[in-house]
Amino acid sequence: MATRNVWGWGVTEAAVSLEETQGRIEPFFGASEIENASAMQLPKPRLEVPAALREFATAADLDRASHSMGKSYPDRVRGFRGDFSVAPDFVAYPRNERELSAVLEVAEKEKLSVTPFGGGSSVVAGVEPKLGPGHRGALTLDLSKLSRVIEVDDVSHLARIEGGIFGPALEQALAPRGFTLRHFPQSFEFSTLGGWIATRAGGHFATVLTHIDELVHSVRMISPRGVFETRSFPASGAGSDPNRLVVGSEGTLGVITEAWMRIRPKPTFRAGASMHFEDFHEAVEATRAVAQSGLSPSNCRLLDSQEAMINGVTFDGNSVLVLAFESADHPLDAWIDRAMAICAELGGTCPRGKTSGQKPGDAGEAWRASFLKGPYLQDAMIRLGVIADTFETACTWKRFPELYASVKSDMEAALTRLCGSGIVSCRFTHVYPDGPAPYFTFLGRSPKRGAELETWNELKRVAGDALARAGGTITHHHAVGRTHRPWYDRERPEPFARVWNAAKRELDPLGLLNPGVLFDAAH
Amino acid sequence: MATRNVWGWGVTEAAVSLEETQGRIEPFFGASEIENASAMQLPKPRLEVPAALREFATAADLDRASHSMGKSYPDRVRGFRGDFSVAPDFVAYPRNERELSAVLEVAEKEKLSVTPFGGGSSVVAGVEPKLGPGHRGALTLDLSKLSRVIEVDDVSHLARIEGGIFGPALEQALAPRGFTLRHFPQSFEFSTLGGWIATRAGGHFATVLTHIDELVHSVRMISPRGVFETRSFPASGAGSDPNRLVVGSEGTLGVITEAWMRIRPKPTFRAGASMHFEDFHEAVEATRAVAQSGLSPSNCRLLDSQEAMINGVTFDGNSVLVLAFESADHPLDAWIDRAMAICAELGGTCPRGKTSGQKPGDAGEAWRASFLKGPYLQDAMIRLGVIADTFETACTWKRFPELYASVKSDMEAALTRLCGSGIVSCRFTHVYPDGPAPYFTFLGRSPKRGAELETWNELKRVAGDALARAGGTITHHHAVGRTHRPWYDRERPEPFARVWNAAKRELDPLGLLNPGVLFDAAH
Repeated sequence: MATRNVWGWGVTEAAVSLEETQGRIEPFFGASEIENASAMQLPKPRLEVPAALREFATAADLDRASHSMGKSYPDRVRGFRGDFSVAPDFVAYPRNERELSAVLEVAEKEKLSVTPFGGGSSVVAGVEPKLGPGHRGALTLDLSKLSRVIEVDDVSHLARIEGGIFGPALEQALAPRGFTLRHFPQSFEFSTLGGWIATRAGGHFATVLTHIDELVHSVRMISPRGVFETRSFPASGAGSDPNRLVVGSEGTLGVITEAWMRIRPKPTFRAGASMHFEDFHEAVEATRAVAQSGLSPSNCRLLDSQEAMINGVTFDGNSVLVLAFESADHPLDAWIDRAMAICAELGGTCPRGKTSGQKPGDAGEAWRASFLKGPYLQDAMIRLGVIADTFETACTWKRFPELYASVKSDMEAALTRLCGSGIVSCRFTHVYPDGPAPYFTFLGRSPKRGAELETWNELKRVAGDALARAGGTITHHHAVGRTHRPWYDRERPEPFARVWNAAKRELDPLGLLNPGVLFDAAH
Repeated sequence: MATRNVWGWGVTEAAVSLEETQGRIEPFFGASEIENASAMQLPKPRLEVPAALREFATAADLDRASHSMGKSYPDRVRGFRGDFSVAPDFVAYPRNERELSAVLEVAEKEKLSVTPFGGGSSVVAGVEPKLGPGHRGALTLDLSKLSRVIEVDDVSHLARIEGGIFGPALEQALAPRGFTLRHFPQSFEFSTLGGWIATRAGGHFATVLTHIDELVHSVRMISPRGVFETRSFPASGAGSDPNRLVVGSEGTLGVITEAWMRIRPKPTFRAGASMHFEDFHEAVEATRAVAQSGLSPSNCRLLDSQEAMINGVTFDGNSVLVLAFESADHPLDAWIDRAMAICAELGGTCPRGKTSGQKPGDAGEAWRASFLKGPYLQDAMIRLGVIADTFETACTWKRFPELYASVKSDMEAALTRLCGSGIVSCRFTHVYPDGPAPYFTFLGRSPKRGAELETWNELKRVAGDALARAGGTITHHHAVGRTHRPWYDRERPEPFARVWNAAKRELDPLGLLNPGVLFDAAH
């Protein structure tokens, strides 16, 4: 049985070795010192577990500690230092909606804030317990017991699934029927369906079905003031779409207990190619042409030269566009051939040629394993005193060149100023006809032990400001939580904030749920 | 200069002849008597045009009459009878947002209801003026002067367009740049961008980009309590999507003055085929397989045998699936070949073979001309005493066979009971991996002159109830307005209604806009 890492990512058995990590960092920084995690420091609970919840709630140290924070860089640094001062007073694990409703009732009576918790992979302080006005304690609502695939409609390609199910369990339950949800965020192994929906998670598909939004057929959410359940239709034109109010609500209006999700047959046909470009801006133009072609690749991941180096794809300074198509229905040669031709017209070459064919296995699995390892690597970086993080945005194609230049130069300047040196790389995780979703990674050595959090805060401020100035959104798929509030508050239409406040007064009038996430409720 | 038809569709010069219409009806009902429109009866205005608005508002008879109603069957029957008793007291034609805001201010001061009016093509009583509580008059806000394409970003394939522009003017403005919005509802010639967005109009594409929702990049709406403007991003994961609150708001929260829309290069490659099926349920299975294949045809229109007959496609009792692909980038043989193979595997034949190739012109234009003629035909039917109307829905593939059977049998029974006989046909206008959007047409002779409205009301009730019982939405793309309220009120999640009321209190606290559309504001 694997052991969940209390401060870091995933399970301790899968940790990335420090040797491997050092090897990756050395080209940039030289060797680094190694530190081990400190002993866990946890405050006493402010209250006992209320009697009505004792059957499925606990105030045990490990439960409280592991529900203290998400998995952002500062969360992990704090956890690594043993600082679990923000822990909830207790954790409830309801096994059904009745028990979940009981938790909300107790919270109301006892004046407790409620933090819905799926896999706990938030990187925006979205699952950190906070007290709202008048609250005398904080409980965390862990949804992991709501983990069933209840029903599969294999005619309509739909499955009714509980919100607390983790990615692998979901896929395992669908596989015997030949289906897959095909939603593979980097947090896949340690995040849940309800969390994906609440945070508008970005998934596997680089085009069209980029966010979980597009996979939600209907949804059921328990609010403190009633059940918000949308109807099962493939589409409707009746009023504003109520699904879209729930998707992205980040646990501030209610708790998502189940959803009918759009599933699909497991793909068997695949085609792919890696296109190399000497010039990054030519690569961007080629990626734009593919994004606007209507070919709809499932993967369309442009790596700039630094990103290609960090990921070991190529070390010759080329940018690389990774293209892939997949289907359960038809061979994809016409698709990949045309996408490659578009790239070739714009200066791309394909040193390794295309792959195409029908394979029973999943050729993407090797890549996915490496992709899912990313967060483990960040843990090892922390032990080596390296500040390593990512941020993402989306902007129009027209704005991208300026955004890329200014984010890179602002971040490089900040890393030089704060860390002596550092690197900033960029890839596109998703692309649209009207613009890309650029995803930046930055690395720098902490100027000294203990300075990690303030250094990160300053880097995050520079990043957010650079995105906002260049016309990018503060998040393409990491959500708002509390960390992105300074920028979200400015990019959100002011009347929408008033509407959201009004919605909050209807569904959670006492402000039990997630105080400070997305917005500050006006009471 | 063409003359707008006051009671009927479009321009009088384009009216369909009664002879042609009789020819179409005769196979079903025999010849019918012909009646001519009655003289216009219009009530006196309840108030004068307020001084502040006189420069761009009028109470002239023709303006008031032509803004009395939409273009539903009962609207046209009332207009044909000369009954314009629901006319607004005056019509304002603001030429910019400043004048539009002045209209809202005057409405607030003078206690007038405000009905935003684009092309006036509503078939759900969405543009009929009504007084809300405490109102002493009704003004209609005609947006047709806000009709510019302001800016085109041909890198990001975006255009900033004013809400009052009509379909043809919009396409004409984009054409010289090589672009098209490609949103062609049947009302295309006499409906506006703002109207499409407010009502979640269904458009040209049978798959993926089915509703205008998917073409909206960002939007600007003037509410009585401030400007609701979303930011220009190709995508974002920051909170619930504010665009999706505006899309489908049906003029109840504000008036859409402009939007950045996703445009595309005019397609040059086309491929198509008409697949014939002896058995309708086999045709449905083939359509489902295409919808779930990932091929994403731009047209995937299944006609049942009655529909094929009414449209003169075939008279042999076959059902016909009309498939088409289009692209500005690549030939489409691989796409059409696979779609045809899927159909052939499920019993389809293709008597006329496929068409495929690169054509500078628009092969769809002939079809579109015939499609756009549909509403004119309905006018002629009214003159011939025939009740002719359509309704649409969307349901899962699993529910469709039962929905089809029960809607057909309920409507046929009702037509027999009320009209002696009648026909009900069905086509799919749009399809999704999880279900089709069936579109029903019904025809019956009015039992007697003067009984049209009560007969239609009863037929509409039977249709709505049959859809609701079988698990279909009350509308896939005709919106809710007031006509669909009895069913929408039941299909909308109750907490969503409370949220909508709360949003209304924030943005239109005095209930100026569209009283009774979508919901009844609780004051």
